[in-house]
Amino acid sequence: MQYFIQRHPLNYDGSQLQSLFTYKNFGLMGDSVLVFRGSCTVEQNEMVDMEDVVAQDWIHSEDMLHFIVEHFDMDLEKTIVRQRLLIATIKEELEVRGVTTLRRSGDDLYAGDKKLSVSIATLSPVSTLVHCGLNISNHNTPIPTIGLTNLNIDDVFQFGESVAEHYCAEVLSMRLARCKVRGVS
Amino acid sequence: MQYFIQRHPLNYDGSQLQSLFTYKNFGLMGDSVLVFRGSCTVEQNEMVDMEDVVAQDWIHSEDMLHFIVEHFDMDLEKTIVRQRLLIATIKEELEVRGVTTLRRSGDDLYAGDKKLSVSIATLSPVSTLVHCGLNISNHNTPIPTIGLTNLNIDDVFQFGESVAEHYCAEVLSMRLARCKVRGVS
Amino acid sequence: MQYFIQRHPLNYDGSQLQSLFTYKNFGLMGDSVLVFRGSCTVEQNEMVDMEDVVAQDWIHSEDMLHFIVEHFDMDLEKTIVRQRLLIATIKEELEVRGVTTLRRSGDDLYAGDKKLSVSIATLSPVSTLVHCGLNISNHNTPIPTIGLTNLNIDDVFQFGESVAEHYCAEVLSMRLARCKVRGVS
Amino acid sequence: MQYFIQRHPLNYDGSQLQSLFTYKNFGLMGDSVLVFRGSCTVEQNEMVDMEDVVAQDWIHSEDMLHFIVEHFDMDLEKTIVRQRLLIATIKEELEVRGVTTLRRSGDDLYAGDKKLSVSIATLSPVSTLVHCGLNISNHNTPIPTIGLTNLNIDDVFQFGESVAEHYCAEVLSMRLARCKVRGVS
Amino acid sequence: MQYFIQRHPLNYDGSQLQSLFTYKNFGLMGDSVLVFRGSCTVEQNEMVDMEDVVAQDWIHSEDMLHFIVEHFDMDLEKTIVRQRLLIATIKEELEVRGVTTLRRSGDDLYAGDKKLSVSIATLSPVSTLVHCGLNISNHNTPIPTIGLTNLNIDDVFQFGESVAEHYCAEVLSMRLARCKVRGVS
Amino acid sequence: MQYFIQRHPLNYDGSQLQSLFTYKNFGLMGDSVLVFRGSCTVEQNEMVDMEDVVAQDWIHSEDMLHFIVEHFDMDLEKTIVRQRLLIATIKEELEVRGVTTLRRSGDDLYAGDKKLSVSIATLSPVSTLVHCGLNISNHNTPIPTIGLTNLNIDDVFQFGESVAEHYCAEVLSMRLARCKVRGVS
Repeated sequence: MQYFIQRHPLNYDGSQLQSLFTYKNFGLMGDSVLVFRGSCTVEQNEMVDMEDVVAQDWIHSEDMLHFIVEHFDMDLEKTIVRQRLLIATIKEELEVRGVTTLRRSGDDLYAGDKKLSVSIATLSPVSTLVHCGLNISNHNTPIPTIGLTNLNIDDVFQFGESVAEHYCAEVLSMRLARCKVRGVS
Repeated sequence: MQYFIQRHPLNYDGSQLQSLFTYKNFGLMGDSVLVFRGSCTVEQNEMVDMEDVVAQDWIHSEDMLHFIVEHFDMDLEKTIVRQRLLIATIKEELEVRGVTTLRRSGDDLYAGDKKLSVSIATLSPVSTLVHCGLNISNHNTPIPTIGLTNLNIDDVFQFGESVAEHYCAEVLSMRLARCKVRGVS
Repeated sequence: MQYFIQRHPLNYDGSQLQSLFTYKNFGLMGDSVLVFRGSCTVEQNEMVDMEDVVAQDWIHSEDMLHFIVEHFDMDLEKTIVRQRLLIATIKEELEVRGVTTLRRSGDDLYAGDKKLSVSIATLSPVSTLVHCGLNISNHNTPIPTIGLTNLNIDDVFQFGESVAEHYCAEVLSMRLARCKVRGVS
Repeated sequence: MQYFIQRHPLNYDGSQLQSLFTYKNFGLMGDSVLVFRGSCTVEQNEMVDMEDVVAQDWIHSEDMLHFIVEHFDMDLEKTIVRQRLLIATIKEELEVRGVTTLRRSGDDLYAGDKKLSVSIATLSPVSTLVHCGLNISNHNTPIPTIGLTNLNIDDVFQFGESVAEHYCAEVLSMRLARCKVRGVS
Repeated sequence: MQYFIQRHPLNYDGSQLQSLFTYKNFGLMGDSVLVFRGSCTVEQNEMVDMEDVVAQDWIHSEDMLHFIVEHFDMDLEKTIVRQRLLIATIKEELEVRGVTTLRRSGDDLYAGDKKLSVSIATLSPVSTLVHCGLNISNHNTPIPTIGLTNLNIDDVFQFGESVAEHYCAEVLSMRLARCKVRGVS
Repeated sequence: MQYFIQRHPLNYDGSQLQSLFTYKNFGLMGDSVLVFRGSCTVEQNEMVDMEDVVAQDWIHSEDMLHFIVEHFDMDLEKTIVRQRLLIATIKEELEVRGVTTLRRSGDDLYAGDKKLSVSIATLSPVSTLVHCGLNISNHNTPIPTIGLTNLNIDDVFQFGESVAEHYCAEVLSMRLARCKVRGVS
């Protein structure tokens, strides 16, 4: 499992949540995390979460730190558990940086009633995928939000790299943890 | 997914980490969390983690809050991801109670260099299982530890129930999250 | 597992056999059975069964009781076994109503050489799906058929609800049956 | 998928429900159905259904027609669905012989409140297994039962062969049904 | 598992690598191998291997012996192992015919630095698929190649049938090998 | 995936074919190949292949080069395909050393009618396992055999390491090959 930090701006419109995006654009073969920065605007027809479509919710943020995770197995529920762990990891990395006021609720992070994150997990024909976006700015969002800037995270790429690094290390450690236990009756 | 709080003392010696333990003793059928309190002493021949066996580590705690989780699917790696999420959930429930100094490292929780928890996940012939024990007392442990008492968690069953309740709710929410997304290309 | 009885007429043309149809239209999240009534006309390009396409068969019925079942796992063979059980359940519910002359042949129900049902199971990108339609009327069908009306089933929705209720209960009971046995050698 | 009719008497005590029993004793390699006749007495320590163990139920019948089914995949829930279909098939084969008074309830068959069958499905280290026993005699059973003799099934091996033949044919037809459909969106 | 030898010329342009191609065109239901002969030209937009797309490689051969293998399970890694075994089988069948100079490198066959084969494995919505093409002629290929003609294989259909026959027999023997072992501790 | 060459003699009696043998004895965590040298004597009660048990075959060789492969997934059929590929790899490594007279038949290697190898694949509670033994000496074997010595392979550990190295590299390359293709329709 590898990660790539794309430092050139890249806006997220939903089309990045497709299989092999990280491989085709940044050359990482196999399970991967891609980190980039840009706005986030997902139109209804690109939305993956049918709950949002049914509720006619829409997603917009001027400036976000994005993570795209791809796992080349086909168990969506498993990748949803991994997604929750990614969110917990983001929260933990913020704690290391002194931010201890966040609360995780499923795949969302909140400071009080202000939302820091959006996230979705889904299946492609060859893999499972997660998108997670963290507001950098909290301007002009359709619901009350908080951004990494409000949390005094100034070097967002450095922060993103810490998250990606820890997530990749944890995926590896979980794979090995599976290989050192005997079964029980 | 259901949980059961066993309030009568029950010491953990490793033999509780077997399939259908919660069903046979407490009647819960299906995925479950069992919470109980007692000492923790696991002899080498009951150890499941071969890394500990190879290292000749042993596990002892005078008084622990125990969680036994059983999932009736056979993907151990998936249950290890769930185990990590359980550990993150324990940390989050402690944060709600004002304990903000803990750090998660894989399936361990630490306050500084003092260990709060032990945990293992494994396979039975019909299910996957997790044990997690949290020190209540930190007396007489073979390595530096911290206990829930040191963290001012006095009602350990109430705390254990919060963890179990949140974990069960999250397992359900993850199952449903799998059922509301369209695939992508 | 839940079911929904849609009492407003809804004609089946094959496009209803798609992932999340029941969720998007009727709000049921997770494994589900949808019951509705309407004509059934599936053109060649909507057909899912390539055997019918190759044979240039076509499907038409003026008035059918329809079941759409969605299971959010990806094992098509398993859903085909469930489909056969659904057909057996339909037969059994008819027996409760005094119809003891039917014969099940795979996923078809017959009275003598007259066909009562059509059925297909397939995969979507996120789930497996079953359609089963039971003739209500047997007028103007391309092959000899029998309808629920001929079998004196007058309240087709009540009948459909019994089938859906029993199927959902059986899926639950099978899930639990998996969680109460020890393994053998 | 093959079946074997063992015409020499063989009493069932639970130890026959083990992996490769049919291969080791009767030479059938791969998915199989074994049919034999004999008494059925399963002691508590051989019981596989923990619900019966917890309830201290025991199983006894003087003379039964036994089916042991082995499928060499490891999805117990899938084999439980197959088990229900096997029970439905037994009922259908009895219908062909004029017995139209039976009712299936999960993996049990009843005539009124008299039980015809016992059945269990479980996992071995290399396969999944089903046992189903049908009372031939209804004498001296611990609960009210009915036997094949009461239903005027005199040639029980011929009947058993019909069941095995239909079950094997249906497993094959389900495997092929999986191979002739296109996916949907 | 069955095979079909299509003796009428059929050019490969990538569109043959789709689910149910062999069933729809040649009537084989279930796991299958199709053997045919024709040119091979795959344009960028039909390419399945993103590594080739990224490298802007293209595939062209005037005359090839083609194999299309379809397995109706969804584990792509497993089908990739089978693909490697197919390539080993092709090499072994050539050895029987006196060609002992070939070297297998993953899913490629070489004589010295001249390439004999192209191959790819992928997922469809209902199956996994392999294409393997062996040059018959080595004229006008974009890289140095060798053809079956250079290896003195004159009856390419007879050769193709041997490969298909051995592959099908080996798939069956592997399925049975899975059904005759006990588990170990 | 890693390999370990154990140069101290180690006799194979079947008990080495157990889960975590390579981890517990040689410290390799995760998928692994262990190579060692020693006699091979497997008594009936340690035999894994029930076909041999039924046939009352027994296995003996004075001096063998042994491979034990462990894969931490639970699909035995998949590991049997890998086993066949391992056998093909052994044959290919011998070809590099000038031995071009071998024939692979399933999981066996022959020179004419003399057998070079024994092999078996099975399941443990936490993994799948392969044993393959190649005769070094062909003295005193119960059936006609050939040994590596007869094939002029003098440095058997160097040869064993080549096999292990190529097998590990191929497992990795197959894992990556799964991660670079788009799906097809």
